[in-house]
Amino acid sequence: MNADVKQMAILGTGLLGASLGLATKAAAAAGAARVAGHVAAGRVVGYARRQEPLDEALATGAIDVGTTRLDDALAGSDLVVAAVPLGQMEAVFHALGQALSGAAAHPVVTDVGSTKRSVLDAARKHLPRPELFVGSHPMAGSEQQGPVAARADLFTGKPCILTPDRDTDADALEMVLNLWQTLGMRLVCLSPDEHDQQTATISHLPHAMAAMLVAVTEDRGGWAIASTGFRDTTRLASSNPPMRADILIANRDAMRDALAAMRGRLDELDRLLQAGDRPTLLAWLEARRAARDAWDGPA
Amino acid sequence: MNADVKQMAILGTGLLGASLGLATKAAAAAGAARVAGHVAAGRVVGYARRQEPLDEALATGAIDVGTTRLDDALAGSDLVVAAVPLGQMEAVFHALGQALSGAAAHPVVTDVGSTKRSVLDAARKHLPRPELFVGSHPMAGSEQQGPVAARADLFTGKPCILTPDRDTDADALEMVLNLWQTLGMRLVCLSPDEHDQQTATISHLPHAMAAMLVAVTEDRGGWAIASTGFRDTTRLASSNPPMRADILIANRDAMRDALAAMRGRLDELDRLLQAGDRPTLLAWLEARRAARDAWDGPA
Repeated sequence: MNADVKQMAILGTGLLGASLGLATKAAAAAGAARVAGHVAAGRVVGYARRQEPLDEALATGAIDVGTTRLDDALAGSDLVVAAVPLGQMEAVFHALGQALSGAAAHPVVTDVGSTKRSVLDAARKHLPRPELFVGSHPMAGSEQQGPVAARADLFTGKPCILTPDRDTDADALEMVLNLWQTLGMRLVCLSPDEHDQQTATISHLPHAMAAMLVAVTEDRGGWAIASTGFRDTTRLASSNPPMRADILIANRDAMRDALAAMRGRLDELDRLLQAGDRPTLLAWLEARRAARDAWDGPA
Repeated sequence: MNADVKQMAILGTGLLGASLGLATKAAAAAGAARVAGHVAAGRVVGYARRQEPLDEALATGAIDVGTTRLDDALAGSDLVVAAVPLGQMEAVFHALGQALSGAAAHPVVTDVGSTKRSVLDAARKHLPRPELFVGSHPMAGSEQQGPVAARADLFTGKPCILTPDRDTDADALEMVLNLWQTLGMRLVCLSPDEHDQQTATISHLPHAMAAMLVAVTEDRGGWAIASTGFRDTTRLASSNPPMRADILIANRDAMRDALAAMRGRLDELDRLLQAGDRPTLLAWLEARRAARDAWDGPA
C-alpha cells in the first residue's frame, strides 16, 4: 500500500483536531513525505458543525480548508480522523455511515477517543466497511481547550494506543500507525478492552482520586495549610469536567473494577496503620516507591 | 520579652535543621535583627549523635559549631529546635528532660515534627517546664535529604503551623512565632488535634493515595501508557518511606478518619458512575473543580 495520504479530513477542530493539523503540516514541511512509510497529508480539510472553530483553525494554519458539510470533507479524503468529544462520537459515526453508504471509495477511519470499546462499537454499527476503522488514542492533552490552544508538538514523545483486532484491514492499520509515528508518538497496541481497563487505572482513576481528595478536604478542612504535594496530587481535579464526565460514563465498567481495586488497597493500608506495625508498613511503602521508580515514564 | 535569640541550638542537622541554620543566618545578615520582634540568632549550635552530619552542616555554614554532646548544645542556648525525624522525637525529648532537670535557666523549646499531638505528649511527659514548649510544623521539605540538600530559602512563603494551648507561655509563643515569621513563613495557629486531622487530610492522605494508585497499577497494569497526569498524581509515592512510615503511624487515629472519609467519597462516585447519570456526575465534578480552583494555594 502506498502510505501517502493525499487528503486528510479532521472531524472536529478542537485542541486535538487542530493540533493534528498543525503537526502533520509541520511534519510534511520537515520532509516526512520523503521518509518511506511516513504519512504526510498533502491537504487537510477541517469539518465542524459550526463555522467559528473552523475559522480559528484556518487562522492558525491547522487546516487548508474548513467546511460545515460532512460530504464536502469526505470528498477526496483517504484518511478521516474523528476528533470530536467522546460524547459526540456515536453521532459522528452515524453521520459518517450515512455519508459513506454506497460510496465508491471508503477512506481509512480513525479517532482520538479516550475510551475504545464504545468507539469500536459505534464504528461496527454504522460504517459500511468497519474493517477500515482503526481505533487510536493519542494520549496528549492540555488544561487548555479549543483550536487556539493547539500546538504542533502536542503529540511528540507521548504514548499513542492503537486497538486493531483480527478484522482490521492491514493497510488501514499501516496508514494509521504511520500517521502517529510521523508525529513522534510512542506506539502501543492493545485490545479495546485492555485499553479501557488500563486507561481506567492510569488515567481515569487518577482523575477520580484527585476529585475525591478535593471532596475529602471539603468535608474535613485544611485548605489554609495545603501545599505543593496537595497541589500536584489534586491537579487533575481542575481539568475539563464535561470531558471527564463523558469518559467516566463511557468507561464505567472498567472504572468499577479500578475503584474496587482501590477500595481493596485502601482497606489494606487502613489495617496496616491500625495494627501499628511499622516494619510491615515501611516494606509496603518501599515496594510502592520501587514500583514507581522502576517506571520508565515521563520525568 | 526581648525576642532577640542570642544562641539557638538545632537538634538534628538534616535537611530541615541545616536549612533552619542557613535561613536564620541569612536573615541575620539581611538585617532582620534590627526589625522589632524578629529573631536573629547570634550563634547557631548544631547537635547530632554522629559527627558526619555536623561536619556537613559546618561546611555549608549552616551552624557555627557542632557537638555530639547535648549538654554542650544547651549551654547558653535560649531557643532549642528539635529537628530530628519523628521516630526520634520521644528519645530526644527524654534526653532534653534529663539534661534540663534542675537547670537554672530553661530554654524555649520547639520542634519541626509533622504530627503534633505525639510531640506535645512527649514534651509534657519529659520537660521540667512544658509551658515553654511550643509545637511547630514548618511545612517545607524536599525530595532530597540531609544537610547537603539544605537551602536558606526552604521555608520562604510556606505555611508554618503553631499549636499552642492554654498552658503555653506567652513569651515562648512570641519567640517561636517570630522565628518562623523572620524566615518568611505564613503562620497558622491550630490545636494539636486540629493540626493532626487537617494534615492527615491535605498531606498524609495524598501521600497514601499516591502509593495506593501505584499499588493498583501494580495489580492491573498500564505502566507503558501512563503519562503526565499519572506522574503528578503519584509523585508523592517516591518520597522517603521511613519518614512517611513514622508520620502515618504517629498520626494513625486521624488517618483512620481520613481514610473513612475517602472510602465514603469512593462509594459515592462508584454509585454515580454505575447509575450512568451524566448530569449528576457532571455537577459533582464541577463542584470539585470549583472547590479546588477557589483554593488560594501555591500556583
